Amino acid sequence: MKKLINRVEDVVTETLEGVARLHPERVRKLPGYHVLVRRDAPVPGKVGLIAGGGSGHEPAFWGCVGPGMMDAGVQGDVFTSPTPDHILAALKAVDGGAGVIQIYNNYTGDVMNFDMAQEMARAEGMKVDTIVVNDDVAVENSTYTVGRRGIAGNFFVQKIAGAAAARMMPFERVLAVGKKANENLRSMGMALTSCIVPAKGSPTFSLGEDEMEIGMGLHGEPGIERTKLRPANEVAELLVSKAADDFPLKGGETVAVLVNGLGATPLMELYIIGRAVAGYLAERGIKIYRSYVGEFATSMEMAGCSVSLLRLDDELISLLDYPADTLTFKQV
Amino acid sequence: MKKLINRVEDVVTETLEGVARLHPERVRKLPGYHVLVRRDAPVPGKVGLIAGGGSGHEPAFWGCVGPGMMDAGVQGDVFTSPTPDHILAALKAVDGGAGVIQIYNNYTGDVMNFDMAQEMARAEGMKVDTIVVNDDVAVENSTYTVGRRGIAGNFFVQKIAGAAAARMMPFERVLAVGKKANENLRSMGMALTSCIVPAKGSPTFSLGEDEMEIGMGLHGEPGIERTKLRPANEVAELLVSKAADDFPLKGGETVAVLVNGLGATPLMELYIIGRAVAGYLAERGIKIYRSYVGEFATSMEMAGCSVSLLRLDDELISLLDYPADTLTFKQV
Repeated sequence: MKKLINRVEDVVTETLEGVARLHPERVRKLPGYHVLVRRDAPVPGKVGLIAGGGSGHEPAFWGCVGPGMMDAGVQGDVFTSPTPDHILAALKAVDGGAGVIQIYNNYTGDVMNFDMAQEMARAEGMKVDTIVVNDDVAVENSTYTVGRRGIAGNFFVQKIAGAAAARMMPFERVLAVGKKANENLRSMGMALTSCIVPAKGSPTFSLGEDEMEIGMGLHGEPGIERTKLRPANEVAELLVSKAADDFPLKGGETVAVLVNGLGATPLMELYIIGRAVAGYLAERGIKIYRSYVGEFATSMEMAGCSVSLLRLDDELISLLDYPADTLTFKQV
Repeated sequence: MKKLINRVEDVVTETLEGVARLHPERVRKLPGYHVLVRRDAPVPGKVGLIAGGGSGHEPAFWGCVGPGMMDAGVQGDVFTSPTPDHILAALKAVDGGAGVIQIYNNYTGDVMNFDMAQEMARAEGMKVDTIVVNDDVAVENSTYTVGRRGIAGNFFVQKIAGAAAARMMPFERVLAVGKKANENLRSMGMALTSCIVPAKGSPTFSLGEDEMEIGMGLHGEPGIERTKLRPANEVAELLVSKAADDFPLKGGETVAVLVNGLGATPLMELYIIGRAVAGYLAERGIKIYRSYVGEFATSMEMAGCSVSLLRLDDELISLLDYPADTLTFKQV
């Protein structure tokens, strides 16, 4: 296993310590917890927002902590949900008196732990609610999921809810637009190689030297098809068409596009995929309002990518346009 | 070779087309050239700035095109210098009447071609000058270089010169602060795995399953030592100490830190390295003013990282703080 780490059991702690140490003007780490919060949290009167999930998907989930998006990111061990005590600590740290909303991807372990944290917080009198992201159209149920999985499209839910909260909208409104973003969101991914979970030390799965897997999950869960590697244009069309058809999108509609790299895929390749996605949408009269290309939710050193589409209306456009100034994502 | 590409000979063109197509509000591609320019180029009265070099290092060199940094990025084939005609096209496209400065890394092919383009532009009456970045302290001469190589620290030269030009400073001043940034810059890198050049289709070099190479170049040029993989803290100390000792930095001085990923190294690992770099500097009384962690100059899917230190004074701090709003780097 070739990783730039010290002890396997310290990777999450040391990552978060590194972030807090290198960006003290932006975030602080809650002592004893795998939680990074905005330096100025809680923001009085603003709806607090936390994102969380297993580690190994960096920059998710702490990457979007900052003005215009999340107030805290809470991290579990690699590919493991954060536990309720860490989630509860995050909820309390960002509660500015207007309630807190937790945003996470639909995996059974996360649902269980975030539900429990929500219950504990409510028992203490806090106002807490939840948005569960389930943007992945690949499969209906999967290894670690009942219902659809959440993947990189989570970024858009954080962006939209984050903008609404930054505009000081009330709790119910922030919750509603965040859920609306999730409902108007579809993603589809593929992988070329496996990642290596540090505690295991060897690849999670293997793919032949000329194979790819369509619809594979962020943790190596099975997809819908294992096939020979095809040219980028065909891969892109496969991903974007599966996402677009699931709505289904119609000519004249407007979307935001996210091309997400899973870790080892060079930016060149993501833009070659993005180019083909743009071509596919243009041919069908679907307008791209804004594009995001890069790494938003990874699987450590996995090679592959996903394509997400957020269907837009005026309300979502206005929130998408709102500035953000987070650790790993900035929009002027 | 597992790459998300179409034809090998189209990778650069399709990458740049993808960028221009997905971000039309920011950049345009010069027809027939591997050049991306700011949408509003040339900016009248502003010193024009171009960055360039071989492809395969994305987001370098087109990533930092935008307000506050570069006016154009000019790309060669993978790991190959851009040719003089493409460089000349970039120089002309960003000439707003105040002259143009070209910024590139010290490789023999780049020096030859950028020199020729500069000569051709001057012959047409343009005011053009050059900053050659040579931040890599690993080796004095290398496979493709006479003198020290330029690597990820190039970002800082673009940032400083970019801010000076955005502040509408005159030509000689922008040139001087850009060169000053390069003189106060030291970098040191290491690799864990090779990249795969598309035209070759197989790894450029091989490293054993438990080996790393210290001081390896961005194209797989030999470094100073091939050794057993060590814990991240030791790797970080090796990199930062080699860079710091080259100045040498003294207690009480202030630096900006860049931890750059070469492509396949997860952000977790970059922050684990960054954490140790911060510890090393703190122990020696060297203050970190600002940190940048992520991918700034890659070698496609190579695993590994580099550490760059920019020694700061008040003038460089003021320019470092200036906002930027580029394709892949934004600072509010």
